[in-house]
Amino acid sequence: MLGARCLLQALRSCSSAPCARPRAPAALSVRDALRARGASGERVKVQGWIRSARSQKEVLFLHVNDGSSLESLQVVADSSFDSRELAFGSSVEAQGQLVKSPSRGQNVELKAEKIEVIGNCDAKAFPIKYKERHPLEYLRQYPHLRCRTNALASILRVRSEATAAVHSFFKDSGFVHIHTPVITSNDCEGAGELFQVEPSSKTKVPKENFFNVPAFLTVSGQLHLEVMSGGNSTLIEMKEVVKDLNWLGIRAFTRVFTIGPTFRAENSQSRRHLAEFYMVEAEISFVESLQDLMQVMEGLFKSTTMMVLSNCPKDVELCHKFIAPGHKDRLEHMLKNNFLTISYTEAVEILKQASENFTFTPEWGVDLQTEHEKYLVKHCGNIPVFVINYPLALKPFYMRDNEDGPHHTVAAVDLLVPGVGELIGGSLREERYHFLEQRLARSGLTEAYQWYLDLRRFGSVPHGGFGMGFERYLQCILGVDNIKDVIPFPRFTHSCLL
Amino acid sequence: MLGARCLLQALRSCSSAPCARPRAPAALSVRDALRARGASGERVKVQGWIRSARSQKEVLFLHVNDGSSLESLQVVADSSFDSRELAFGSSVEAQGQLVKSPSRGQNVELKAEKIEVIGNCDAKAFPIKYKERHPLEYLRQYPHLRCRTNALASILRVRSEATAAVHSFFKDSGFVHIHTPVITSNDCEGAGELFQVEPSSKTKVPKENFFNVPAFLTVSGQLHLEVMSGGNSTLIEMKEVVKDLNWLGIRAFTRVFTIGPTFRAENSQSRRHLAEFYMVEAEISFVESLQDLMQVMEGLFKSTTMMVLSNCPKDVELCHKFIAPGHKDRLEHMLKNNFLTISYTEAVEILKQASENFTFTPEWGVDLQTEHEKYLVKHCGNIPVFVINYPLALKPFYMRDNEDGPHHTVAAVDLLVPGVGELIGGSLREERYHFLEQRLARSGLTEAYQWYLDLRRFGSVPHGGFGMGFERYLQCILGVDNIKDVIPFPRFTHSCLL
Repeated sequence: MLGARCLLQALRSCSSAPCARPRAPAALSVRDALRARGASGERVKVQGWIRSARSQKEVLFLHVNDGSSLESLQVVADSSFDSRELAFGSSVEAQGQLVKSPSRGQNVELKAEKIEVIGNCDAKAFPIKYKERHPLEYLRQYPHLRCRTNALASILRVRSEATAAVHSFFKDSGFVHIHTPVITSNDCEGAGELFQVEPSSKTKVPKENFFNVPAFLTVSGQLHLEVMSGGNSTLIEMKEVVKDLNWLGIRAFTRVFTIGPTFRAENSQSRRHLAEFYMVEAEISFVESLQDLMQVMEGLFKSTTMMVLSNCPKDVELCHKFIAPGHKDRLEHMLKNNFLTISYTEAVEILKQASENFTFTPEWGVDLQTEHEKYLVKHCGNIPVFVINYPLALKPFYMRDNEDGPHHTVAAVDLLVPGVGELIGGSLREERYHFLEQRLARSGLTEAYQWYLDLRRFGSVPHGGFGMGFERYLQCILGVDNIKDVIPFPRFTHSCLL
Repeated sequence: MLGARCLLQALRSCSSAPCARPRAPAALSVRDALRARGASGERVKVQGWIRSARSQKEVLFLHVNDGSSLESLQVVADSSFDSRELAFGSSVEAQGQLVKSPSRGQNVELKAEKIEVIGNCDAKAFPIKYKERHPLEYLRQYPHLRCRTNALASILRVRSEATAAVHSFFKDSGFVHIHTPVITSNDCEGAGELFQVEPSSKTKVPKENFFNVPAFLTVSGQLHLEVMSGGNSTLIEMKEVVKDLNWLGIRAFTRVFTIGPTFRAENSQSRRHLAEFYMVEAEISFVESLQDLMQVMEGLFKSTTMMVLSNCPKDVELCHKFIAPGHKDRLEHMLKNNFLTISYTEAVEILKQASENFTFTPEWGVDLQTEHEKYLVKHCGNIPVFVINYPLALKPFYMRDNEDGPHHTVAAVDLLVPGVGELIGGSLREERYHFLEQRLARSGLTEAYQWYLDLRRFGSVPHGGFGMGFERYLQCILGVDNIKDVIPFPRFTHSCLL
């Protein structure tokens, strides 16, 4: 059964010590059974779940699948088998001969001599009914069972492929992966929506001040990534190394990334927010302009999506066909066009000239609302659009001052995409010690961020970075409306199932 | 500067909209500068950190590195430049001509016309001193600066490569990656050492019962992975799909894995424990014996390690040479031998016959202590050893009953490795409804784990899984003594820096 076997170059011949349970004869996977050459009556054992059961005269046809192959293996049993037990969803072990199949579309079938039900599937109690179309909302009540539906399984397979694709994109571009901490003593942007962490009352350790300081769940790995990207790697720790020039150079982490969980204690049940969600974040040294950053952002989006489309086309197709009809064209439109760029000031002008009646009046110096973002994307022909250079007053202390006028802006960038709105947010970081010092002082944060200032005291370089909401990315490429359906176990206000 | 450029097939020609900051002429990376053909006097700009500065007669030699290459670029400046400013650790931008170098070991050097210091490095204030050998304990005080040392940078690069290697191993073996939740309402094994999560008092949301139920930080993703591996994928949601047999089959997740953060509120400052650490976890359906599992475990260890050794040999070498002399041979010994297997009962016999004076007397039915684990590994010739079939009474409810006697055991397995002790723990899971029901009832957990019982009601199959401590794995292959040195930002009792 285990494909990992092939991968193991260092095969183990087991030890001399006795093992308590005798090793059962290896079962053949459905994939291997279907590939069997000649089908010369070989006797085999196959395990899997019954996909369909069909009685015909005195013969019972089962389709058995174990997840190893796209296709199921047809198992033919005579009427001596109890067809009531061999029902859809049950797991079975079938033994018999692999023979040439007279049926169309398959070379091989299993002539069963013995079929054993491993695990019954209690169809009456099962909240998911065969051939019934349950809405995604209904399925959310059963987080432990919904992954057994086509829809959720396809979405989660895409999520798995997208995770791998993100890793590939960054690895191929020379980024080092960093696990930024989940528990942190800094609250990053001074955001209010934090979860606090304390030992539970059941523990034997003192509940208060386990860490000596208040500890929170991270809202972003950015500042920790910046620590790692200020790659002025010095030559310490072992003198001998200094002599060897080959040891130099590779020490610097000029490009780092992470894909990890982030948290917001927001009282929101919206289709775009979760209390626990994943962020893809990157920091890059020696970035000279927002354009450098935007290029990486567009590259991440397009290369990850192309990889997903090529690695699990059928799963994407299923979503595009049944969950979001028409979305295939919308995604292709995004992929084949260059993303656009407008400044925040231009965006406000566009909104002011719009004939649309906004709930929030667009005005320079005020944050863009979801309705504004939607309008801008539509205005740009449903092509993703970068909005750059936001008012300094709207943005956190670490964004680089553009020193412009009359409107004072920072080198910030948001990527807006159809259907989702803000997908990625980034900026050049303020690398100039005195600029940063003043911004921190104005916010009363100087003491708390001394370590962050330190990064500018010792060989500071121009740098920038961004964060992409991973679930929003999945929503964007699959057309899934509710963010709760693109994460295995959604957490939000009033809900933390399992 | 950005290598990602090459990767971008879908190149953007920027938009028609004006960008606020003019695009600076692209700087050449050190890597590209060193590769320049002919060195025909081309004028270029290079940015990086000064690795060394050496005055000789009327010429100043700088070695500049930006992390893009192993080697640094030699920059030659005449005496008109202020050598005090051009000091080790500072970041600079140098413009000039690329010319053929008369020095040995390099083809090209930069004849500087202009050198601008981007960021000074205040050597006096910098807690890390040039050419000084700081112990790892000292560096732990400076989590925001220690990654600039060779030792930490090498360890973190290995961590990054190991992360990628773990993903590769599982992906190549047909596993689907699942993000198991960080916040959970179940306390898995009834373990006491939990962190509780609540909105901080600063938030506007009600502090108590944000999720309606008490919420904790996960101690393991196992149960959530089991949800995903019970891949009895049914055909619901969209009737049309049912007609198309091609849609079937791939729905089942029979093999899943995760690599994510897990937490323990343990009052421990040991060299093997953290409050926040990473676990590599896997669950596999249709596993018939512990041997199947052990094969994957050994494959994971060996294949990941081989990949790391081949992708960042110099970083591993640095650790083996300077942090843990002699460890290279110990690791090779582990890689070239088949792992051993002994039963728990045999292990206790070996310990009882040992001449060693243990603090805890070995006895059947009592947990193995670290001193015991160490002895067993030594006894087995410093080859990793699987200990299998532990007393039922010692293990949690989900481990499969071996139904044996006179000693009653479960199909559990721990992998013990030299230096670290327990690296991986796993088991066959109890897939039989009635066995599981009884075990839960005995622990008074039936109600809380109804959803877990459900997985056995609907097409249950034999399955198993395991979890590997990722930091312990890194300690094991690198020979790093303290777990706090193999994670970017260690969290433990009384410490949560940054």
